[in-house]
Amino acid sequence: MYDQILALLENKKYLELKEVLSDMNEADIAAILEDLPMEKVPLLYRILPKELAADVFVNMESDTQEFLIRAFSDTELREVLDELYVDDAVDIIEEMPATVVKRILRHTDPEVRNSINEILQYPEDSAGSMMTIEYVDLKKYMSVDDAFTRIRRTGVDKETIYICYVTDENRKLLGIVTVKDLLLSEKSAKIFEIMETNIISVTTLEDSEVVTEKFQKYDLMALPVVDRENRLVGIITFDDAMDALQDENTEDIEKMAAITPTDKPYLKTSVFETWKTRIPWLLLLMISATFTGKIISHFEMALQTYVVLTAFIPMLMDTGGNCGGQASVTIIRGLSLGDIEFKDIFKVIWKEFRVAFLCGITLAAANFVKLLLVDRVTIAVAAVVCITMLLTIILAKLIGCTLPIFAKMMHLDPAVMASPFITTIVDAFSLLIYFGVAGLILKI
Amino acid sequence: MYDQILALLENKKYLELKEVLSDMNEADIAAILEDLPMEKVPLLYRILPKELAADVFVNMESDTQEFLIRAFSDTELREVLDELYVDDAVDIIEEMPATVVKRILRHTDPEVRNSINEILQYPEDSAGSMMTIEYVDLKKYMSVDDAFTRIRRTGVDKETIYICYVTDENRKLLGIVTVKDLLLSEKSAKIFEIMETNIISVTTLEDSEVVTEKFQKYDLMALPVVDRENRLVGIITFDDAMDALQDENTEDIEKMAAITPTDKPYLKTSVFETWKTRIPWLLLLMISATFTGKIISHFEMALQTYVVLTAFIPMLMDTGGNCGGQASVTIIRGLSLGDIEFKDIFKVIWKEFRVAFLCGITLAAANFVKLLLVDRVTIAVAAVVCITMLLTIILAKLIGCTLPIFAKMMHLDPAVMASPFITTIVDAFSLLIYFGVAGLILKI
Repeated sequence: MYDQILALLENKKYLELKEVLSDMNEADIAAILEDLPMEKVPLLYRILPKELAADVFVNMESDTQEFLIRAFSDTELREVLDELYVDDAVDIIEEMPATVVKRILRHTDPEVRNSINEILQYPEDSAGSMMTIEYVDLKKYMSVDDAFTRIRRTGVDKETIYICYVTDENRKLLGIVTVKDLLLSEKSAKIFEIMETNIISVTTLEDSEVVTEKFQKYDLMALPVVDRENRLVGIITFDDAMDALQDENTEDIEKMAAITPTDKPYLKTSVFETWKTRIPWLLLLMISATFTGKIISHFEMALQTYVVLTAFIPMLMDTGGNCGGQASVTIIRGLSLGDIEFKDIFKVIWKEFRVAFLCGITLAAANFVKLLLVDRVTIAVAAVVCITMLLTIILAKLIGCTLPIFAKMMHLDPAVMASPFITTIVDAFSLLIYFGVAGLILKI
Repeated sequence: MYDQILALLENKKYLELKEVLSDMNEADIAAILEDLPMEKVPLLYRILPKELAADVFVNMESDTQEFLIRAFSDTELREVLDELYVDDAVDIIEEMPATVVKRILRHTDPEVRNSINEILQYPEDSAGSMMTIEYVDLKKYMSVDDAFTRIRRTGVDKETIYICYVTDENRKLLGIVTVKDLLLSEKSAKIFEIMETNIISVTTLEDSEVVTEKFQKYDLMALPVVDRENRLVGIITFDDAMDALQDENTEDIEKMAAITPTDKPYLKTSVFETWKTRIPWLLLLMISATFTGKIISHFEMALQTYVVLTAFIPMLMDTGGNCGGQASVTIIRGLSLGDIEFKDIFKVIWKEFRVAFLCGITLAAANFVKLLLVDRVTIAVAAVVCITMLLTIILAKLIGCTLPIFAKMMHLDPAVMASPFITTIVDAFSLLIYFGVAGLILKI
C-alpha cells in the first residue's frame, strides 16, 4: 500500500491518489503519512478528501501534527480545527509547543476555546482531562420522538449518540437513556419513564485508573463526568478508556522495570530523556547494592577459608531475586486488577509461604544433586548452599508478596516494589543467611 | 452496602431486600454475592428481580457460578441460560467441569447449543472464541425505515444494535451501517447507499492480539468475524476486547517475571498450580546461573589475591541486570504496542548504546568517588570496578534491547526476554569483563 501511494505521489497522479485514499481507513492513511519523508507529508495531506482530513490528522503522531500545523495556512488550520472533537483537540494541544498552541487557540471559535481551556486545567490523568464535552443531552419531559428529533439535529458532531444524558435546567444529571431504549420504546413514551436513574459516573478530579476500572467493571460504552454538584460536564467514551488502560499498563510495566514512566513512544524519545527516566533508579539501586558488598567484606575471612563458597553467591542471589520477583509481580498485578485487597494479606502470605516452600525444596534438591555430582563439593558445603537456597527462597517470596501490599497501604505505587527493588533487598538477606548457615555448619 | 444487605438477609426482610437490589448495578450485586458466605448465595440470588438475575450471574466468578448451577433446579437453570448471550455462555462453560457442562447443554435449546459447540471448537484466544453470534444483520436493498423495523423487532437480544451488518444471501459480509448513519439518513434511503464497504474484519482463527490491536488502531465499537470465504460468523464487542486487552497485559507481565501465565485470579489458584507456573523457569534460570559459578571458580586464584574484588561482584551484577532489564522491558513493550518494528533494530541499538554510555559514565563516576572516599580502595581497584561497570552496562543494554527483537523475529514471545533472562546472561558476561579488566590493570 505504502509503495503504491508513494509511486502515485511521485508520478503526480493526484486524482488517482485521491481515489485510492478515499477508500482507505483514516488510521491506515495516518500510518502511511508517518512513514513518508517529512517534506512529502503536507502534499499528500492536501490531496486527502476533505471529510477524511481531520480524522487522519487525529490519528497522527504529535511531531507530524506539529509539522503539519506549521505548514498549514490559517484557513487550512481552521478547517481541521472545526472538525475536531474537543477532547482530541486537547490531546493535540497538550503535546504542542507554546507558539503552536497560541496559533491553534487563535483559530478556534470562542466557545470551543473556552471548553478547551477548561479541560486543559484539569490535572493530567484525571477524568476531566480525558473527557469530551460533545454529548447528547435530553430533558425528562421529552417524548421518545422528541428525543430522536434532537439526536438527528445535534448528533452529527457528537462523539457518541448512543448514550444520551438527561439533565435538568441546572445541568444536574438525572438519568441516562440509550438509543436502544429509545428504539425499543413507544414513540410517545416520556424520557423520564424509560431513563435509567441508577447512574455510574465519576467526578472531574478522579484518577484515570478509577475511570478504566469502572469501564471494565460495568462494561460501559461511555461514562458521564460530573462536578462536585453532580452537574454534567462531559463524558468519556470507551475508545479513550481503552487508550488510558493501555497507558496505565505501560506505566506499570515501566515502573516494574525501574523506569520513570513517560508517555512518548520509544523512538520519539531523545537519548537524554531516556537517560533521565532510567538513571535515578539505577543510582538508587546501585547505592542500595553496596550493602551486599559490605556484608561480603565483613565475611572476607570466611570466604578466604572456603573460597569455594564464593562461586555460589551469584546463583543464590539470582534465584532469590527471581523468586522474589515472581511473587512481587504476581501481587502487584493482582492488586491492580482488584483480585487482591489489603484484607487478603494473611491469605497471600500463607499461600506464598507454601509456594516458596515447594519451590525451595525442588530447587534445593536439584541443586544438591548437581553440587555433589557435577561440582563435586563436600556434603557439608552442598548442605550449606541448599539450606541457604531454601531459606532465601522463603524469605524472598515473603518479602516479594508483602512489600507491594505495604506500598499500597502507604498510598505508594505497588509497581515500584518489583524485581529490581526486591532483588536488591533479597541479595543482602541471602548473603546474611549464607554466611550464617556456613558459620553453623562449617564452623567458620 | 454489603453490611446492609447481609443484615436484611439475616433478618429475613426479603421484600425490602428485593427493593434495594433492584436499584443496584449487576456488577455490584455480583461483587456482594462473591463476598457472601457460600451457603447464603443461592438464597440472595433467588431474591433478585428476574430481569437482573442473568446479568448478575454473568458478572460472578466461575466458582460461584458453578456452586449456583449445582444449586439450581432445572427450571431455574433454563431461565438463566435463556437470558445469556452466546459468548457469555461459552465463557462460563469453558470454566466448568464436564458434568456441569453436560447439564448446561442439556438445558439450552438446540439452536443455541449448536452455536455454543461451534464457538467452543475455536482455539483459546482466537477471534472465534471471543465472538458472539448475536448481531443485527440487514440486507442491501432494505430502506432505512425497514432497517429500523428490523432492529426494533430483533434488537432486544443482540449484544449491540449500534453497528449493523449487511450480508448477502450466502452470509457474505457486504457492508456495515451504524445506527448513527441510519438516524442521520432519509427514511427512504437504501442501505447499500449509506453502508460503509471498507470493512475492517478478522478471520475466526486470528489471535486475540490482532483483535485488540484493531480495536485500538481503529477505535472500533464492534469487529466482525468472518470465515475464510468472508462469510460473517459473529462479532466481537468493545467490552470483550477490553477484557482481552487486560488479559494480554497480565500475560505479558507474568512472562516478564518468568511466570507461566494463567487466567485464574491469584487467590483462586491452588498452591500446587502456582508452584507449577513458577518452578520450570526457576529451575532453568538456576541452571543457567551455574555458569557464573563456573567463571568465579575459574578465577579463584585471582580472587584469593585480591579478596576485595569479591565485595563488588553483587553490585556489578545487579547494576548490569537492572540496566539490561530496563532496556529489554522498554523494547518488549514497544514491540507489543507497535511502536518498534524489526526494521528499527539498528536505530534501537544505536540509541541504547548512547543511553548506556550516558548511564554507564554517570554510575561509574558516582561509584568511583564512593570507592575512594567510602570504601577507601586503591585507585587501581576503583578503576577496575568502574571500567567493568561502564562496559557491563553497555553490554547489558545492548543484550537487553536486541534479544526481544530477535525473539520476535524467530516468532517467540519477546516478553520472555525480560529481566530474569537478561540478568542471568549479563551476570556471566559481567564477571568475564570484571576478571578481564582486573587481569589487565592489576596484573593478576
